Amino acid sequence: MPNNHLYDHDIVSIKDFTKQDLEFIFRSTDKISTLRPNEKSELGKGRTLGYIFYEPSTRTRMSFEAAMASLGGSSIGIFDPKSSSIEKGESLADTIRIIDLYSDVIILRHPLDGSSRFAGELSRNPIINAGSGSEEHPTQAMLDLYTMLKEKKKINNLTIGIVGDLKYGRTVYSLLYALANYNVEVHLISPSILGIRKESIYDIRKKLKLYEHSQLEDILPKLDVIYVTRIQRERFPDIQEYEKVKGTYTIDNNILTKAKPDVSIMHPMPRMEEISHSIDDTNNAIYFKQAAYGKELRAALLALVLNENPI
Amino acid sequence: MPNNHLYDHDIVSIKDFTKQDLEFIFRSTDKISTLRPNEKSELGKGRTLGYIFYEPSTRTRMSFEAAMASLGGSSIGIFDPKSSSIEKGESLADTIRIIDLYSDVIILRHPLDGSSRFAGELSRNPIINAGSGSEEHPTQAMLDLYTMLKEKKKINNLTIGIVGDLKYGRTVYSLLYALANYNVEVHLISPSILGIRKESIYDIRKKLKLYEHSQLEDILPKLDVIYVTRIQRERFPDIQEYEKVKGTYTIDNNILTKAKPDVSIMHPMPRMEEISHSIDDTNNAIYFKQAAYGKELRAALLALVLNENPI
Amino acid sequence: MPNNHLYDHDIVSIKDFTKQDLEFIFRSTDKISTLRPNEKSELGKGRTLGYIFYEPSTRTRMSFEAAMASLGGSSIGIFDPKSSSIEKGESLADTIRIIDLYSDVIILRHPLDGSSRFAGELSRNPIINAGSGSEEHPTQAMLDLYTMLKEKKKINNLTIGIVGDLKYGRTVYSLLYALANYNVEVHLISPSILGIRKESIYDIRKKLKLYEHSQLEDILPKLDVIYVTRIQRERFPDIQEYEKVKGTYTIDNNILTKAKPDVSIMHPMPRMEEISHSIDDTNNAIYFKQAAYGKELRAALLALVLNENPI
Repeated sequence: MPNNHLYDHDIVSIKDFTKQDLEFIFRSTDKISTLRPNEKSELGKGRTLGYIFYEPSTRTRMSFEAAMASLGGSSIGIFDPKSSSIEKGESLADTIRIIDLYSDVIILRHPLDGSSRFAGELSRNPIINAGSGSEEHPTQAMLDLYTMLKEKKKINNLTIGIVGDLKYGRTVYSLLYALANYNVEVHLISPSILGIRKESIYDIRKKLKLYEHSQLEDILPKLDVIYVTRIQRERFPDIQEYEKVKGTYTIDNNILTKAKPDVSIMHPMPRMEEISHSIDDTNNAIYFKQAAYGKELRAALLALVLNENPI
Repeated sequence: MPNNHLYDHDIVSIKDFTKQDLEFIFRSTDKISTLRPNEKSELGKGRTLGYIFYEPSTRTRMSFEAAMASLGGSSIGIFDPKSSSIEKGESLADTIRIIDLYSDVIILRHPLDGSSRFAGELSRNPIINAGSGSEEHPTQAMLDLYTMLKEKKKINNLTIGIVGDLKYGRTVYSLLYALANYNVEVHLISPSILGIRKESIYDIRKKLKLYEHSQLEDILPKLDVIYVTRIQRERFPDIQEYEKVKGTYTIDNNILTKAKPDVSIMHPMPRMEEISHSIDDTNNAIYFKQAAYGKELRAALLALVLNENPI
Repeated sequence: MPNNHLYDHDIVSIKDFTKQDLEFIFRSTDKISTLRPNEKSELGKGRTLGYIFYEPSTRTRMSFEAAMASLGGSSIGIFDPKSSSIEKGESLADTIRIIDLYSDVIILRHPLDGSSRFAGELSRNPIINAGSGSEEHPTQAMLDLYTMLKEKKKINNLTIGIVGDLKYGRTVYSLLYALANYNVEVHLISPSILGIRKESIYDIRKKLKLYEHSQLEDILPKLDVIYVTRIQRERFPDIQEYEKVKGTYTIDNNILTKAKPDVSIMHPMPRMEEISHSIDDTNNAIYFKQAAYGKELRAALLALVLNENPI
């Protein structure tokens, strides 16, 4: 049996992953989901995940911790820089090199672009980027695509709308790079001041059929998937402008009536007012399933970087 | 063998538990305490406890974590709302629904009445209320009664004094509801401004023999158990009033000489000045045993909600 | 097979350990390092480490947690006094007595001298001092000596320079007491206002060949080991004085050229500017190895206090 090629490798950028890589990860996630608990708990037994969160994150941290626990492993780390050596002024390099000695795989979130690449070069053990800089959140993009695959039964030929703050939303860029491996039509819907940063998607513009809109309703009836991101009040110089925008982008029952009956609503969470709680129990709302798929996909990634054999 | 009826059930309010339920839990705690470590660690193997503490708690959180570890399981969660998504403004509903996907049982502490009931309706997995609103802390009440049962060899026919802040102390209300299942005499001892809220115990007034006092010494010689709660300085408009009250309620060697020789002193902890350290090593002081019984009882509850078979 | 004499014992002060004790711990660390993961994970299976950090520490806490995880055990505890009962004003005695009920071994860091001794007297389970007061950090001193033994192949006859803040550095005092068991020559290099507190090493002055210097370069060519500690800006009344001192004590390539070719640079970490990153990849830099040995030595200590049999 050939080794799995993710064994002992870093997961730094979605740009490093080919379509074949992604599909190997999706198949591995399918497989891990079918394992019985006592089989699963052999995959990380006695292994330790070390996490370092220089930016707060509950969701991502707990998702990885839960994934590691399901593999029979433990988690240790830092998620509150204020009560740690980070506060004393320790360099990222030293923090990484030390946690590398205490663990078998490292999960890193850091505000700077390139932080995970840098960490990967320093550490013996694999690094998994849990969000860096303004553009990289590779495991989020993987779980987003895996969710589409499971819920829509395909990724190719989907028409996908991405709504909200496309300028500052880290997940949007990773998602677009992941989608560029497939034949999809992508509609970017945002107020002009929160539009996508063109230079950041320069090299995938030709691979993706990309369209920009300022009104969701212009394209709503065509969408198979609406991927919603948070719009932060503080991005707007004018609060009235914010209130106006927020209203037109909020996904609620009224929006659903104008969309395809089987449209799927996704969100990287946490969700604020941009999706109405009134649609939580519809079949269209798949954002909680997305979080559940995320735990499984992260369990698969951990199992793959920690073990030579495929799952 | 019949299934245990707590399997996959929420533990929200002490009011939901009959005397038979409580005694089933006490017998299960007895049984779990006799298991060898390697038997015990099969009961939660590969399972994950997810905790969410919207209010600080060291004692209760660690008690549950230690209980889960003794069952062979793991714990993940949030205990510092300031460094989590909660801070970003996520709703309780979303936080519950997500942690529900990452864990097998949820422990929740929240300042609002009804929060655990609400959480239980949203989650697939069982919720255990670790303190909500002003009146509910069911696992504390259970461990309080279990402590009486183990240390006094009975609950029926005990004469119990509850001393301190009866108005704001969450544990007092749950304890009274639990005691209402038994034939006990309860003396409530507090300064008048910190007296019990009558409306909150309306439906058990007839079941309990309840008496109110403002001076502990009035009833002291009759008590089998003195359950002490903290009096917080900030409840008093007048600091001199506080100092005076504090003095009369402090349990020390002087108080013990006026009480029954086998009187038992209990406290939900943390304890401040309301119990003198000078009595810690007497046989009357059972508040540390109470904490130890608490871990065992919580291990039993976790084992019961996680497993179909009785312990 | 005789029991190991550390079983169920506290590790409070380096002064309690004879040379024979230290060498037993070093041999045990050698042995534990050769165990396969599944053998190692039997040594703490189902056991819980309880930690209480009244002062922040990332490094030491994670080192112990990782060590416990490698033994198959769990860790629970408090490392942020602000969100815990400690904040409510609970006494150290109560906090210790409660965590003692929830765990099998306790790791304590506390600002007061004598805190660990006190805790050890209260707890049923063994206490390990993870730093107390101004002078005690016994496990750090043990791992420092173990690092010398592994990297220099001996401790006797080493010439060791200790550089930096010798007045306030807790680790320095424990290190000197540990070294006093061996025949070593120790050079203390510090600005005069940060010199060693003589009264704190009074009883080992005769056992150690101790020399004081204010300039590193005076003794540099003779040193086998340079143990560097942090100099904190806030210790200096005059910032210019700080800048001048900092420069003369910084270990960099220039310093290495004037030292023995095989000089070893150690540091308890976290390291700030006192060691230049430019020497991290030289064979002289052993501070990361030191951290790795630390995890192994702590795993050995935990295994020894938790198990009757030697490793």
